[in-house]
Amino acid sequence: MVIDTQFYMKLALDEAWKYQGLTYPNPAVGCTILSSQNEILSVEAHKYAGAPHAEVEALKSAYFRLTDDSKILELHESSQIHTYLLQNHNNCFNGVSLYTTLEPCSHIGKTPSCASLISKLGIKKLFIGSTDSNPQACGGAEIAKNAGIEVESAVMQKECDELLKPFDLWREERFVFFKWAQRLNGTIDGGLISSLKSRTLVHAMRDVCDLLVIGGNTVRVDRPTLDARLVGGRAPDILIYSRTKEFDKTIPLFSVEGRKVIISDDLSLLKDYKNIIIEGGGKMFELSMQFADYHLCFMSPSTGGDSNFTTINEKLEILNIQKDEQDIIMWMKQKGNN
Amino acid sequence: MVIDTQFYMKLALDEAWKYQGLTYPNPAVGCTILSSQNEILSVEAHKYAGAPHAEVEALKSAYFRLTDDSKILELHESSQIHTYLLQNHNNCFNGVSLYTTLEPCSHIGKTPSCASLISKLGIKKLFIGSTDSNPQACGGAEIAKNAGIEVESAVMQKECDELLKPFDLWREERFVFFKWAQRLNGTIDGGLISSLKSRTLVHAMRDVCDLLVIGGNTVRVDRPTLDARLVGGRAPDILIYSRTKEFDKTIPLFSVEGRKVIISDDLSLLKDYKNIIIEGGGKMFELSMQFADYHLCFMSPSTGGDSNFTTINEKLEILNIQKDEQDIIMWMKQKGNN
Repeated sequence: MVIDTQFYMKLALDEAWKYQGLTYPNPAVGCTILSSQNEILSVEAHKYAGAPHAEVEALKSAYFRLTDDSKILELHESSQIHTYLLQNHNNCFNGVSLYTTLEPCSHIGKTPSCASLISKLGIKKLFIGSTDSNPQACGGAEIAKNAGIEVESAVMQKECDELLKPFDLWREERFVFFKWAQRLNGTIDGGLISSLKSRTLVHAMRDVCDLLVIGGNTVRVDRPTLDARLVGGRAPDILIYSRTKEFDKTIPLFSVEGRKVIISDDLSLLKDYKNIIIEGGGKMFELSMQFADYHLCFMSPSTGGDSNFTTINEKLEILNIQKDEQDIIMWMKQKGNN
Repeated sequence: MVIDTQFYMKLALDEAWKYQGLTYPNPAVGCTILSSQNEILSVEAHKYAGAPHAEVEALKSAYFRLTDDSKILELHESSQIHTYLLQNHNNCFNGVSLYTTLEPCSHIGKTPSCASLISKLGIKKLFIGSTDSNPQACGGAEIAKNAGIEVESAVMQKECDELLKPFDLWREERFVFFKWAQRLNGTIDGGLISSLKSRTLVHAMRDVCDLLVIGGNTVRVDRPTLDARLVGGRAPDILIYSRTKEFDKTIPLFSVEGRKVIISDDLSLLKDYKNIIIEGGGKMFELSMQFADYHLCFMSPSTGGDSNFTTINEKLEILNIQKDEQDIIMWMKQKGNN
């Protein structure tokens, strides 16, 4: 195995994908920090809006590793961590390299700019995956260069761009992904499939998205709630994709407070939303091929059920694989899609 | 993400799993080496019988990284690498840590003992996953301890034992695994599924195994050759699992030279073989649950085909996931199996 720049960027990428779908209105970003002697000091990601950026999380862990100063572990607010690092770094970051999947932000918003923080800590080398095209945050590489940091851009850019794409689409217009849970043998019927951990992750995604599209048949058969109760979160609006408007209103999803439920087969309604999760079975999977940007499959390593959920011919491409205690979590896109 | 002993052992584990099934009569083993400053110098595995052990491969890469002496890259024989390292190390390994999924061998066979090599290079710390219970090779930890190396045993022992189990079973009696290729939607019909890279890996496994068990129906429908031509390898003997003995002898598998083909539904014939790969469809999958030790699935991220290959209720457990350019490669075992 080759241990090189790509290896360290891949660590940052894998960490960031764990939080894909959870970080809006921020992008999913990962960061790896190496000591001057190339020891991995930290691999961290941006976890949710309001949490520190990936670089700040990684600098915090790296600082603790380098100094053993546990006071920093008590700080969770990004601005507090910024201030603490600036006051206490005592040149401990001299010679350090930082790998980030996205150009460090130049934007002073909820948190101070990562680029300026990095520039003031004595960091030697900055490896960047995607260039930030967001006019509010771009220019971080330039700030670092001007501070004398060696900057190498476009490291695993294709993979970093794939990680960033949901955010870019969301910012420009909207991001739509189809999520389903299946067994190894391609079935989705016959009761609970995913682990509690997988289901909790889906609830966290629902909490962040603004519209959940679901097939009419799934609503009738499964009588779902489709909320975010496992994370105590907000339930998204629902679009039941159906020609007929007749539904038993005692189905739990209709009684969730603060949610709008639309029954329609008019997909132009999606234009009112920006972060859209599609759930459902074979029909919705087939339909999703026309308008989903990414596909997310939770696969349980079990067999059973009655029949495979689809037999349409489609080719996908794996963007990232993760494993929780039980399931495999696969982010994919249609093959050939940019 | 926590960067600790387990992280480094996991790198060794993942590298070793890539060669699972290819290393007989040796076990699959992985090795990670860290500098005195905890830089990852190398992550290597044992690749095939006759190739250097994982520790030797990793020491070779680490030596080059530490010294830039490219002469060692020209050496491929284990004994040459041993000799070269002993003569030229010049204390470059002082303070180095070595992580190995299996206790370094004490056995002088085709290659000198890894334990004695490690003991003579000034290595500081040795992390071991599984203890070697092979009477011909055990005792490596003791040799290292006696040489003053700090030894920590049982690091990720469960995972390292799972990696080692095929070899242990093979040594004691036999190792049997069921291998299949499927699409995301659980289908196995309708033409070629796996990438060339996946198929080449299967051919390399066939080259190493001594018996291939295949369902009679698969033979009739697919008319396979079941050899190892993609790696220029030896074709294993075949057991066609079938009650009826009638087969069209123009099916290519019957014409492969130097191979024995048995047609029988008597699985007690397996006792004459030690490394057995089962291929086939749903019926063989179902049957395999009774006697396969591990399951190996090559999954293409595509949908299509006609129907899922099985609907029996089974729970498996993922042991390792790899990804090649296209497919996901999953080693699994039945849930609850030791």
